[in-house]
Amino acid sequence: MKSRSHPFLGSLLALAAILFVARQAAAQTDPLPSWNDGPVKQEVIEFVHDTTDESSPTFVPPAERIATFDNDGTLWPSHPMYTQLAFALERIKELAPQHPEWKTKQPFKAVLDNDLEALAAAGDKGLLELVMASHAGMSTSEFETIVTDWFKTAKHPKFDRPYTELAYQPMLELLEYLRANGFKTYIVSGGGVEFMRPMTEAVYGVPPEQVIGSSIKTKYEMQDGKPVLMRLPEIDFIDDKAGKPVGINKFIGRRPVAAFGNSAGDREMLEWTGAGSGARLMMLILHDDAEREYAYGPAKGLPDTKFGTFPESLIEEADQKGWVVISMKNDWARVFAFEK
Amino acid sequence: MKSRSHPFLGSLLALAAILFVARQAAAQTDPLPSWNDGPVKQEVIEFVHDTTDESSPTFVPPAERIATFDNDGTLWPSHPMYTQLAFALERIKELAPQHPEWKTKQPFKAVLDNDLEALAAAGDKGLLELVMASHAGMSTSEFETIVTDWFKTAKHPKFDRPYTELAYQPMLELLEYLRANGFKTYIVSGGGVEFMRPMTEAVYGVPPEQVIGSSIKTKYEMQDGKPVLMRLPEIDFIDDKAGKPVGINKFIGRRPVAAFGNSAGDREMLEWTGAGSGARLMMLILHDDAEREYAYGPAKGLPDTKFGTFPESLIEEADQKGWVVISMKNDWARVFAFEK
Repeated sequence: MKSRSHPFLGSLLALAAILFVARQAAAQTDPLPSWNDGPVKQEVIEFVHDTTDESSPTFVPPAERIATFDNDGTLWPSHPMYTQLAFALERIKELAPQHPEWKTKQPFKAVLDNDLEALAAAGDKGLLELVMASHAGMSTSEFETIVTDWFKTAKHPKFDRPYTELAYQPMLELLEYLRANGFKTYIVSGGGVEFMRPMTEAVYGVPPEQVIGSSIKTKYEMQDGKPVLMRLPEIDFIDDKAGKPVGINKFIGRRPVAAFGNSAGDREMLEWTGAGSGARLMMLILHDDAEREYAYGPAKGLPDTKFGTFPESLIEEADQKGWVVISMKNDWARVFAFEK
Repeated sequence: MKSRSHPFLGSLLALAAILFVARQAAAQTDPLPSWNDGPVKQEVIEFVHDTTDESSPTFVPPAERIATFDNDGTLWPSHPMYTQLAFALERIKELAPQHPEWKTKQPFKAVLDNDLEALAAAGDKGLLELVMASHAGMSTSEFETIVTDWFKTAKHPKFDRPYTELAYQPMLELLEYLRANGFKTYIVSGGGVEFMRPMTEAVYGVPPEQVIGSSIKTKYEMQDGKPVLMRLPEIDFIDDKAGKPVGINKFIGRRPVAAFGNSAGDREMLEWTGAGSGARLMMLILHDDAEREYAYGPAKGLPDTKFGTFPESLIEEADQKGWVVISMKNDWARVFAFEK
C-alpha cells in the first residue's frame, strides 16, 4: 500500500469530514439564542419537533404549517403608544388646517391638544377611526410613499432609534426558526395593513401577502388614463379580537397551528388556533420588564394600560387552556438586537 | 495505462453523462404541449424568459412574480351556468321549504321555477345574492363539508363528468409552467372564496391562501365551549370587475405581473396589472369553440351570454393595450385532459 492515499479520494474524504462537522455544528447551534433556557423555550422546541418530525404522531404537512403573529406588543413595542398612532398623530396635525371641525370633535381634538389621556379613553375602536380617517384621501401608492418616508426618519421616544430597529430579537429568532422548519409566518394585527406592509419584509422577513390587518375601503378609479386605488375614509375591516379569526379565515382559509400575541386583542385568535386538533402552540408575551422595555397588565398586579391590555382573565384562560405565558423579564436573555 | 478505467471514476462519468442527457431532455421538453405553436404560445414563453432570466432588462425578482387567474371561464367552464350557480340551485331547492317567501321573490322564484332566463336577467349581482343567501346559516367548517360532498357527486350536464375534471388542460400547464419558473399563482374570481377553496389545491395546485373571491360575512361565536365562524347572509365583498384590483391589493398587497381572464369581469384586473412597469402579460380567453366547449361573446359575432360576457369593447381594449386574446379553437390543441 502506498503511503499517500489517492488524491481524489483524499479530497472526497476531506469534504465528507467538513460536511460532518458542519452538520454537527448546525445541530448544536441554538436556534433561539436570545431566549433563556427553561420550560418556555423548551415548549417551542418540542412543538417544532412534534410538528415536523415525520415519525411524530402529531406531524403536520408543510403546507398546513401556519403560524400567526400579532404585531404591536408581540413583535415590537406598543408603548408609549401604538407606532401607527404616533404616525397618525403627526398626520392629523399636518392635515388639521383642512379640517376645522376636528378642533371640537373627539378623538381629533385630543390629538390637537396633545391630550394622551383623552386619546387612550377613545379606546381601540376610536383610535382605529382616527387612524383610518387620517389615512384616507390619497391613492394606495401615495400612501405607501408617505409611510415609507415616515419610517426613514421617525424615532421611538424612549429608545431614540427608528421603529424599524425595535423588533424583539427573540421573536425575530422565533420567526426565522419556524420558517426554517417549513412554517409560513403571518402577521395578524389590529394595525392597518397598508401601514405595516411597507416595512414587514425588511423588519420581520414577512412578505406583504402574509400580512393581515385592519383596512379602510379602496375604490378603483381611472386618473388621466391610469388606474389607481383611492383610499376612502370608511372602515372596511377591523382585525382585532373576534375579528382576528374572521381575518385568518378570510385571508388564509386554514386554521393556524401556532399563534402568538400579548393582549386581550389576541384572545380569540388563540382560542381559534387552539380549537384545532393535533399539536398546537399558543403563546402570550407578558410585558413585565420596565427596565429593558415596559411593564403593564393589569394582570399579575402590573400597571394598567389602554395600549395592549393584558387582563387577569387572560392569564386565567391561558392557565386553563395550556397557553404559554412568556415573561419578557425572565424568558428573554435579550430584548433588542442593539443591546450589548 | 490499464485497459480498464478506475471503477469509481467510471461511475462518476456515467452519472455525469446521465445528468447531461437528462438536462438536454428537460430543455427540449415543451412545457405547454396542449398549446398550438404560434404567436400566442410564443408570447407566454417570451414573457417567462424576460421575467426570469437574470440578464434580462425586465427581470423580476422571485418574490414579485405574482400571476392572477380568473376561475370561471378561464380555468374551467362557466357554461351552461357558473358551477357555483349549479350548486346554489340545488341548495335553494333543498332549503325552499324553510323559506316560503322565496316563492314570490326574485331571483329565488326563478330557481324554484327552473326559469334560467329570469335567473340570467338577475345579473351577476343578483346571482351573487342568490349564492350568498343560499350559503349562509351554517359554520364555515359545515359549509366546507357541504361543498366537498357536492363536488364528489355533481356532474357537468354537457360533459357528464365531475366538475373537478373540467379544468382546461392548457391552463393547468400554464399554471405549472409559471410555478416552475418561480411565479406564485393566485385565483382571483367573482366566485365565492369558500366555494372554491375546498377544491383549488387538488384541481389547480393552488392552496387556499392563494384564492381570492367574493365572500359573505362571518361571525366568531362560542358554541358549547368551541369556537366557530358562522356564515351570515350578508355580502362582505364582491370580487368582480373593479372589485378585482381592490381584492388583489387587499389580499396580496402587490401588483401582479401577469393576469388571465375571459370576460368583462376581468377588465379592471388586466388594466391594473398592465399599469405596472416592466414586462407584463395580460391574456383573455375567447370561447369560440362550440364543438369542444362553448362559443360566446358577443365579441367577434359570437352568441351573446349572461355568463362570462366578452363584449366587443373588451377586444378593442385588448388590441389597444397589447393584451393577448387566446382563441380556444385555434390556440389550444386540447381543451380537457380526458380528450383523446
